[in-house]
Amino acid sequence: MTNLPKSYLTHLECPECGRRFDADQVQTYCPDCRSPLMARYDLARLRGDATREQFGQRPRGMWRWAELLPVRDPRYRLTLGEGDTPLLPLARTGAALGMDALFVKDEALNPTGSFKARGLCAAVSRALELGVREFVIPTAGNAGGALAAYAGRAGAPAHIYMPADTPRANQIEVQAAGADLHLVNGLINDAAREAGAEAAARGWFDVSTFKEPYRCEGKKTMGLELAEAFGWRLPDVILYPTGGGTGLVGMWKAFAELEALGWIGSQRPRMVSVQADGCAPIVRAFQQGAPRAEAWQNAHTLASGLRVPAVFADRQVLQALRESNGTALAVSDEDITAAQSELARGEGIFAAPEGAATLAGLHQLRQSGWIAAHETVVLFNTGSGLKYI
Amino acid sequence: MTNLPKSYLTHLECPECGRRFDADQVQTYCPDCRSPLMARYDLARLRGDATREQFGQRPRGMWRWAELLPVRDPRYRLTLGEGDTPLLPLARTGAALGMDALFVKDEALNPTGSFKARGLCAAVSRALELGVREFVIPTAGNAGGALAAYAGRAGAPAHIYMPADTPRANQIEVQAAGADLHLVNGLINDAAREAGAEAAARGWFDVSTFKEPYRCEGKKTMGLELAEAFGWRLPDVILYPTGGGTGLVGMWKAFAELEALGWIGSQRPRMVSVQADGCAPIVRAFQQGAPRAEAWQNAHTLASGLRVPAVFADRQVLQALRESNGTALAVSDEDITAAQSELARGEGIFAAPEGAATLAGLHQLRQSGWIAAHETVVLFNTGSGLKYI
Repeated sequence: MTNLPKSYLTHLECPECGRRFDADQVQTYCPDCRSPLMARYDLARLRGDATREQFGQRPRGMWRWAELLPVRDPRYRLTLGEGDTPLLPLARTGAALGMDALFVKDEALNPTGSFKARGLCAAVSRALELGVREFVIPTAGNAGGALAAYAGRAGAPAHIYMPADTPRANQIEVQAAGADLHLVNGLINDAAREAGAEAAARGWFDVSTFKEPYRCEGKKTMGLELAEAFGWRLPDVILYPTGGGTGLVGMWKAFAELEALGWIGSQRPRMVSVQADGCAPIVRAFQQGAPRAEAWQNAHTLASGLRVPAVFADRQVLQALRESNGTALAVSDEDITAAQSELARGEGIFAAPEGAATLAGLHQLRQSGWIAAHETVVLFNTGSGLKYI
Repeated sequence: MTNLPKSYLTHLECPECGRRFDADQVQTYCPDCRSPLMARYDLARLRGDATREQFGQRPRGMWRWAELLPVRDPRYRLTLGEGDTPLLPLARTGAALGMDALFVKDEALNPTGSFKARGLCAAVSRALELGVREFVIPTAGNAGGALAAYAGRAGAPAHIYMPADTPRANQIEVQAAGADLHLVNGLINDAAREAGAEAAARGWFDVSTFKEPYRCEGKKTMGLELAEAFGWRLPDVILYPTGGGTGLVGMWKAFAELEALGWIGSQRPRMVSVQADGCAPIVRAFQQGAPRAEAWQNAHTLASGLRVPAVFADRQVLQALRESNGTALAVSDEDITAAQSELARGEGIFAAPEGAATLAGLHQLRQSGWIAAHETVVLFNTGSGLKYI
């Protein structure tokens, strides 16, 4: 455990008003803008200190990007084996769609069976380093399981607020890890209200999506891994199932940092948000050209992770879609189910419905011609289908 | 995909009578001895051609050990991202047990959420290379899910025979992948009878545990990864939950090959089989000093993967335990459940009951003094607890 790389974290910044915040204090979000805070690093110095190749020579896992992650003291770097998930070619599915280079980044091979492990690993580790001792989270499902696991790993109490109709696997994994499970009548925004009130009353730290700065940093590693896997050229299109949008914003941030480091050029993927047609606030705002996404009424979809009616980082999500010349589109539950079957039968990948939604979205974008045959396209499967049965 | 390493496979051998079999034909087991066949490689030549360090510089996954795996043509190397699972320190559990160096190898982070992915990946890939087009398997659960996934990946039909009371997740993952699911009244040996009859009648290839030579080769990579992770010194003790025993026999074989290559010395871990007290044929045979394990009557345990009454590779399992100065012990379902909770609450690892059984076994072996405080010990968690709910 000697010679572990150190973090190049310098400060936090509000992307709306530019105000700086001390990264070595516990922070939440910008009180003036109600915007997420973004972690900033001394990239100029790191550029001189490191080469992009050295990261690939370290032991597998998210922490091999430690310079670009927020935890300073290596002893606080919790791990359950998160990160370095496979990038799998979808040869048969690609051929059926007339495509040359279609891939899935399979985030189901994370601890707790979902991409949420990355974000909660980073957030819990950093919060513990800054003195936090007790956690609370509202969740559509998988984030709660991930918080319970990392809090369990650290021996810290965690309180999980989730809709009562969240898949049973999410409820059971929370209870198994010894976390305190609260079932809420309503959706994730109702859970967030209850969690927030308890957090304020009891001094628990709220790790809601984007209401602390570091889940985004963990999710950012998906973008770092993609850049490395494609030989430091990015794919042409990334389709990402968008609930709270942490991964999309995180990857977009990763690409900017990699360019600042001189490890990639200015080329960017077109970023695509895929949502369910029963809960598509980002799609609606994107189509209207609006800078912000209004809350979606009567949200419903079988893809529980997409049932996020109010997106706290709506500005950042919409900005990434627009800056990248990307798009946003909604798919039906029927199309999600069909795509889930297509992936399982055709490729042996039993994807979460949120992950399958990206394949449903790809069908639309191939049909419309928005994605061309020769383009390199990455779908994100955010979790295991086993958690939804 | 250029310069991919080639297999050093030379032939197959019966470890009982020494008879050689052509590895480039479809083979099953030794008809004279009813023994599994073992794959043999030109290790002397590989020793001259390769260094142990180069394997760590390749992209993650099981196929980075291609020289020591049976598939010759890289195009047949199926992948869903299997292998390179994390080796996680159990700091708090170790401290509670007065131990300095306790680890879990977390095989839940494989595709299909279990260690079965490794074996079926190798077996299906090699069988397809040799011309097999349709598969059948009897399974206690996870192997069926893994076969369905890899067959789905390859576009090959698969027929899965499992006890009707196998966990629902195993049934659903098989159906999702489009495989043909047969529920059998009885246990895995009853399923094996039905599967074997259909295989003979219809010409399907039977990938039952050890009735073909290559699942063991895939499982072997667990041993290769362990040796590499510990810097080419092996741990003192490995606790392995033993149903059919493929992983235990596979790791033991890996260690012999690594020594022949000069990459490790002659030191070996003491290998420990952990079984459930409701189905402990290996434990009984080990304690009786018998060379073979008789079938267990009225097998029952909540750890469905340990519900294997008749062990086809009983001789090889018992030999590995004895040659290693290891042992075998049985744990109760109550102890398994308690250990599962201990791992989830104390370490954030929601293990399969079979994996938790190894921690229950460790408690016994620490209490008896068979394992000393300073020893390096590895538990195998063979799958995700999420598959058993």
